[in-house]
Amino acid sequence: MGRLRACLYDPKRGFLAAPPMTDAVRTGPFKVWCNQPFGDAGVEQLKHGLAGHSLLYQPGRDEPNDDLESAHVVFGKPAVASLLRSEALQWLHVGSAGYTPWDREDLLQRFRVRKILFSRSSMVYCEPCAEQVLSLMLSWARRLPWALDAQRGARQWRYGEIRSQSRLLVGQSALIVGFGTIGERLCELLKPFEMQIVAVRQRVRGDEPVLTISVSDPRLDEFLGNTDHVINLMPLNASTAGFFDHRRLSAIRPGAIFYNIGRGGTVDQQALLRLAQAGHFGALLLDVTEPEPLPVDHPLWSAPNCFITPHSAGGHDNEQERLVSHFLNNFNRFITHQPLLDRVV
Amino acid sequence: MGRLRACLYDPKRGFLAAPPMTDAVRTGPFKVWCNQPFGDAGVEQLKHGLAGHSLLYQPGRDEPNDDLESAHVVFGKPAVASLLRSEALQWLHVGSAGYTPWDREDLLQRFRVRKILFSRSSMVYCEPCAEQVLSLMLSWARRLPWALDAQRGARQWRYGEIRSQSRLLVGQSALIVGFGTIGERLCELLKPFEMQIVAVRQRVRGDEPVLTISVSDPRLDEFLGNTDHVINLMPLNASTAGFFDHRRLSAIRPGAIFYNIGRGGTVDQQALLRLAQAGHFGALLLDVTEPEPLPVDHPLWSAPNCFITPHSAGGHDNEQERLVSHFLNNFNRFITHQPLLDRVV
Repeated sequence: MGRLRACLYDPKRGFLAAPPMTDAVRTGPFKVWCNQPFGDAGVEQLKHGLAGHSLLYQPGRDEPNDDLESAHVVFGKPAVASLLRSEALQWLHVGSAGYTPWDREDLLQRFRVRKILFSRSSMVYCEPCAEQVLSLMLSWARRLPWALDAQRGARQWRYGEIRSQSRLLVGQSALIVGFGTIGERLCELLKPFEMQIVAVRQRVRGDEPVLTISVSDPRLDEFLGNTDHVINLMPLNASTAGFFDHRRLSAIRPGAIFYNIGRGGTVDQQALLRLAQAGHFGALLLDVTEPEPLPVDHPLWSAPNCFITPHSAGGHDNEQERLVSHFLNNFNRFITHQPLLDRVV
Repeated sequence: MGRLRACLYDPKRGFLAAPPMTDAVRTGPFKVWCNQPFGDAGVEQLKHGLAGHSLLYQPGRDEPNDDLESAHVVFGKPAVASLLRSEALQWLHVGSAGYTPWDREDLLQRFRVRKILFSRSSMVYCEPCAEQVLSLMLSWARRLPWALDAQRGARQWRYGEIRSQSRLLVGQSALIVGFGTIGERLCELLKPFEMQIVAVRQRVRGDEPVLTISVSDPRLDEFLGNTDHVINLMPLNASTAGFFDHRRLSAIRPGAIFYNIGRGGTVDQQALLRLAQAGHFGALLLDVTEPEPLPVDHPLWSAPNCFITPHSAGGHDNEQERLVSHFLNNFNRFITHQPLLDRVV
């Protein structure tokens, strides 16, 4: 037994192995450029997986450069200017779940015209982020932070108080705002709890596993007002910046729990702070803030029932291994003309 | 949306409603005696559910007494001496999951001979206890106690440290020792995590949802040595007292996480403490200790990576409502000759 199976987990497909080979392979060898910083084990894993091809490994090299522009395959966080110039590029795989720096019409248009593939690493991060959300929900329900405060403080055995304030997650309701791969995995993790879940996303696709409404749906306020857990997973872009403004935060049912696992900038943090200080929320569980790091003297640190994790939701001890595995899995798919995982374009 | 559905949840049957009535009802009215202490709402709920019968409500009356001995139905924590004398008793329903005080051969034999029914309240407590175990597993995996220590301390934004030490629960392994209703529900909650789970119980029944071995199975040591999460759910009785002795605790894989949600007395606490202080465990997550309350100066409070909750695993804010609902559900089953839930005899 062990944790090898966790190496690359896809909620839809289970644990991923290399895809079956077909006859229609791309001709190589390929020149692969990578600037994602890995430890020795990660670099070895990458070299091993790319045997027979050439690897240009330039960790942390963020500026435009000729090496990058000569590569067929780019893995990491490359400079957009080079991508716009490259005549060699066939596939870009970014080493993060979000892709805001590359989400530009000029770049996407060039990719479409030249049939350049573009994929990202969201599958690597949906699992830790979904587990983080559930850990926060359950730690609130079972009053773990209060128990730890008692342990670190007077070492009181707060039996009656903590028992009577503990909750059950089963049968409660949740609103997942910014529904995507994390939200999908979260729904799977929450399934045994028989919760009443509603999802909110920019555009409803129709294949979501729970009732899903668009951000502009007038029922949003109603759901904010009668849900136990309001979970913000929104990325930061022009349409989400400040989405949770004072009006929407006030619409949340008093006593409900508000989570931010998306980005700090999607929430009006002054409004959040004022409402928290007025006792509006049952608890605030924040993995992201604005700014980050949150300054030592920021009042959110000591706001009532506010618990902060340092943007750690996506982290895991085998993150590098899973990032490399995900890229190599896609590299095999690239060579064999299989559909890429986490494809953007 | 709300938490009404959580009122009485049975992992096997879902949310319970009253059973269908049949023609074969027991003749009443019944004299019901109850000494379980409830608030006003609980007492009202009980009275309402027992309309047409007579309720003798004597909260906290623990000593033998004539009222108890004259009742047809007893709900709560009654004196054994009275139960042994009663000529009227038809059904005993204890208001706890454990039933150690009533687990005596003279009483059980009397119940069997006189066809007196005996049930308990484990269904009320398996849900909060299973949620508590998962909350502890996830809070460890996602490093929530470490983040709270940082928040309460220097307010450092420990991004790199906490991200790289965070874990994924998916694909890890767990050994559930003392497998019963809590363990069953825990397996349901863990299902989306695709963990490798082995259960250990006194007698293997063969209908368990995971590989299950008996406590005397020689493979136990092997499983202790290669499992990520060792979860002790054992009740305290003659055969479990001190079960986790120095030898078995030492057999646990170094770095594994040890949980005690059973009873403090099932673990040799001095051995546990010495091993914890030597850094044997990845973490110790204890809801029960010996003694309770744990004295303020007890070294477990400050043992490395040891986190203590004050025997709160079974608690929940609607505990009284769910205890009364469970009893009334069984009362309807009693009247209509349906099989009782949580039946002992």
